[in-house]
Amino acid sequence: METKAFQDYYPDDLAHCYGCGKLNPHGYHLKSYREGTETVARFKPEPYHIAVPGYVYGGLIASLIDCHSTGTASAAKYRAENRELGSEPPLRFLTASLHVNYLKPTPIDTELMLRATVKEVKGRKVVVEVRLYAEDDLCATGEVVTVQMPEGMPLGKPADQEG
Amino acid sequence: METKAFQDYYPDDLAHCYGCGKLNPHGYHLKSYREGTETVARFKPEPYHIAVPGYVYGGLIASLIDCHSTGTASAAKYRAENRELGSEPPLRFLTASLHVNYLKPTPIDTELMLRATVKEVKGRKVVVEVRLYAEDDLCATGEVVTVQMPEGMPLGKPADQEG
Repeated sequence: METKAFQDYYPDDLAHCYGCGKLNPHGYHLKSYREGTETVARFKPEPYHIAVPGYVYGGLIASLIDCHSTGTASAAKYRAENRELGSEPPLRFLTASLHVNYLKPTPIDTELMLRATVKEVKGRKVVVEVRLYAEDDLCATGEVVTVQMPEGMPLGKPADQEG
Repeated sequence: METKAFQDYYPDDLAHCYGCGKLNPHGYHLKSYREGTETVARFKPEPYHIAVPGYVYGGLIASLIDCHSTGTASAAKYRAENRELGSEPPLRFLTASLHVNYLKPTPIDTELMLRATVKEVKGRKVVVEVRLYAEDDLCATGEVVTVQMPEGMPLGKPADQEG
């Protein structure tokens, strides 16, 4: 497995995502890697990331699926273009739609594993399918439609440079 | 508009949700109210809740849509049973599926408003449709299938009572 995650290749001005940006001091810092034909990310929720006591909050699950998918989309697009990860211009993806099925309550006290496959790479669109496990238990599935971020999209200042 | 939110009627042992639980000291504390034929919630993101600088993180949008929907489902089910909000036994809903369409980038520097309608109340299932606005701009829509939490579902300890 590579030691540098897909998200670590995002350029600094696009690396502030709350879910996966290496430069967001408050965020989750999700990190996604290639593993064979799939991509993988692992995440240990905090004890307070609960829906009801004992079980992971659905919004966190949606967030992890979202960021693992946009990271996977970026890596897939670099590969489709036969380019090195992180080479310029950056290939950064945003979410167009997110669909999560919660199959069973996800226990809070264990590491979660996300596994994704790329369903489609077509033009600026990449569709990613994700499975989320607690240990070996499949707890949620997701399908995420991502689109390549437009060049020249006007950006704000990241929070740590404000005020 | 009522002054007490749907989520404020959740019993204490089910009021620790990271998105909307009044007893989760780390969470978002989303509060949903009835307003005519719709339900409404308002939320001001923190400056660090970003995807790319200037725009709200999609996982937060998914989280807000999720919690506004489960709150709306609870209130709809109480109403369908002609019961007072918060009366025993509690009607607490969990998410079975969540579908979010991100229509445009959501600006980080303004209050968000969620508006929901109940599409279906059938047995233990309630389906909720949500629109998320930044000022008057419709930025995302969601459809959430919620199911009534089973009686006797085994619960863990909330985080603030651990360790």
